[in-house]
Amino acid sequence: MQSALFLLIKVKFMETFSKITQSFKNQSFMKTIGAKLDLVDDGKVIISVKLKEDMMQQHGFGHAGVTFSIGDSAAGYAALTKMGEHQEVLTSEMKIHLLSPADGKVLKAVGSVLKTGKRLIVVKSDIYSIKDETEKMIATMLGTMVPSIVSS
Amino acid sequence: MQSALFLLIKVKFMETFSKITQSFKNQSFMKTIGAKLDLVDDGKVIISVKLKEDMMQQHGFGHAGVTFSIGDSAAGYAALTKMGEHQEVLTSEMKIHLLSPADGKVLKAVGSVLKTGKRLIVVKSDIYSIKDETEKMIATMLGTMVPSIVSS
Amino acid sequence: MQSALFLLIKVKFMETFSKITQSFKNQSFMKTIGAKLDLVDDGKVIISVKLKEDMMQQHGFGHAGVTFSIGDSAAGYAALTKMGEHQEVLTSEMKIHLLSPADGKVLKAVGSVLKTGKRLIVVKSDIYSIKDETEKMIATMLGTMVPSIVSS
Amino acid sequence: MQSALFLLIKVKFMETFSKITQSFKNQSFMKTIGAKLDLVDDGKVIISVKLKEDMMQQHGFGHAGVTFSIGDSAAGYAALTKMGEHQEVLTSEMKIHLLSPADGKVLKAVGSVLKTGKRLIVVKSDIYSIKDETEKMIATMLGTMVPSIVSS
Repeated sequence: MQSALFLLIKVKFMETFSKITQSFKNQSFMKTIGAKLDLVDDGKVIISVKLKEDMMQQHGFGHAGVTFSIGDSAAGYAALTKMGEHQEVLTSEMKIHLLSPADGKVLKAVGSVLKTGKRLIVVKSDIYSIKDETEKMIATMLGTMVPSIVSS
Repeated sequence: MQSALFLLIKVKFMETFSKITQSFKNQSFMKTIGAKLDLVDDGKVIISVKLKEDMMQQHGFGHAGVTFSIGDSAAGYAALTKMGEHQEVLTSEMKIHLLSPADGKVLKAVGSVLKTGKRLIVVKSDIYSIKDETEKMIATMLGTMVPSIVSS
Repeated sequence: MQSALFLLIKVKFMETFSKITQSFKNQSFMKTIGAKLDLVDDGKVIISVKLKEDMMQQHGFGHAGVTFSIGDSAAGYAALTKMGEHQEVLTSEMKIHLLSPADGKVLKAVGSVLKTGKRLIVVKSDIYSIKDETEKMIATMLGTMVPSIVSS
Repeated sequence: MQSALFLLIKVKFMETFSKITQSFKNQSFMKTIGAKLDLVDDGKVIISVKLKEDMMQQHGFGHAGVTFSIGDSAAGYAALTKMGEHQEVLTSEMKIHLLSPADGKVLKAVGSVLKTGKRLIVVKSDIYSIKDETEKMIATMLGTMVPSIVSS
């Protein structure tokens, strides 16, 4: 019995995983900046990006727009793991605090869910800079996702 | 006398204009997304971008990261017009509300200054989508810029 | 005919006005701080409060909690003027920037609506300090209201 | 030797504790709403308040202004534990997410520090409602404190 339930959960999660993987591929901007979907878990999604020469701000650090982009997507997909089959989510509002310059070779955004409601989902994202095998939190985001219906 | 003062102001503003133009050029990510510096005025800066195929989210609208990127830069440079010669600004925190999908051909961010203080500058940015010669506000941002010293 | 339509609009607005007035009276905390409902218009509400000795922070200026309280209520009621008969609104999230100390005798919050959607309403509030017949903007707020059903 | 260092740290912390206790007493609004300073630790401050009849919103739950007030103060004092002897802090901006109605008998705000910088301190506050010996997080706040010099 338990294994049947487990299988059911696993199947449902495979669907969610597949939906998110496909949605991520459909985001041409994620491809443009070279972002990768590293992890999809229940209420948690990780997206990373290699910082390249063409993604910098004026002082040679990673542009805040890159940090925001992966942080927003990670938070949105974390919310999506909590939604039903035919639902999607849209970012309603998002606040980002830039704590330190994005000076590493890789940025990693860890999105998670604080509160799931019918009308909206409160999410957060912490973004880390990876340099010489050490991780440093360079930004934190707190925002609101709104469920929407998939138009097909 | 008045014309001398006017000239002085004009010279000072030319320096600011030149500093911002140079700084904008140094942002490789602005070049990557094809952003243009349209206007630099006292406390007001406009940056626009053509939405291309490689800048979309999963539903074919402009990615929130693009909207954020030009809105953040416009607000930052608006703050920079209020700073002294050897100062720069960094984004400390920024909140963005996404009001409508970015469905136009061009996005335009109008950054302005709400309050200039010694320790920080409160800024806003309104982002418009331009489609068939009509403009629609698709996002609004409210945030904090922090003055910093130029390291040369 | 036109006068009948006008009358209809007026009646509908009287209902909204009456609903807001009653809701304001039901907020015991508004009474505790002595807040007054000064204006209810379509998409705009003004609430003011006299700063008294028992509403200060440690430096003798008005407490940020007082500023937040009237700004949040003004924004919420501004959203409510856009809702149907049996709806109410709740604050989902709100950001406040404190621009200057609240050093006047009266604080006045002007709440307004930026965008009305089915799922949420984006609102703002500007708060002014009134001193010696001059007004100064001391805070600005930007946030999200969520429609809810009145439980009776 | 170690005990002397320990004593020094303890003395320094006693000064911080004393400064915060005094500052809290000087906030007349904290007294008005009956707020109590429950804990002062390095980078962490807890403030609680009993929800009384005169602190409600229109549906009989605790007013968001009360939640904001204790959350803001807890975050500010958490920042103050990181400052030097003659410094104070001011709230620059603060975002609050209201996750659930404040339906308990007591609200408790736990303020903490995310990042201490020279120009500003990034803080957070989680607010819990206590009812029948269970705690529930009803709000979370994320904001910016700015150091200032004590005027005496």
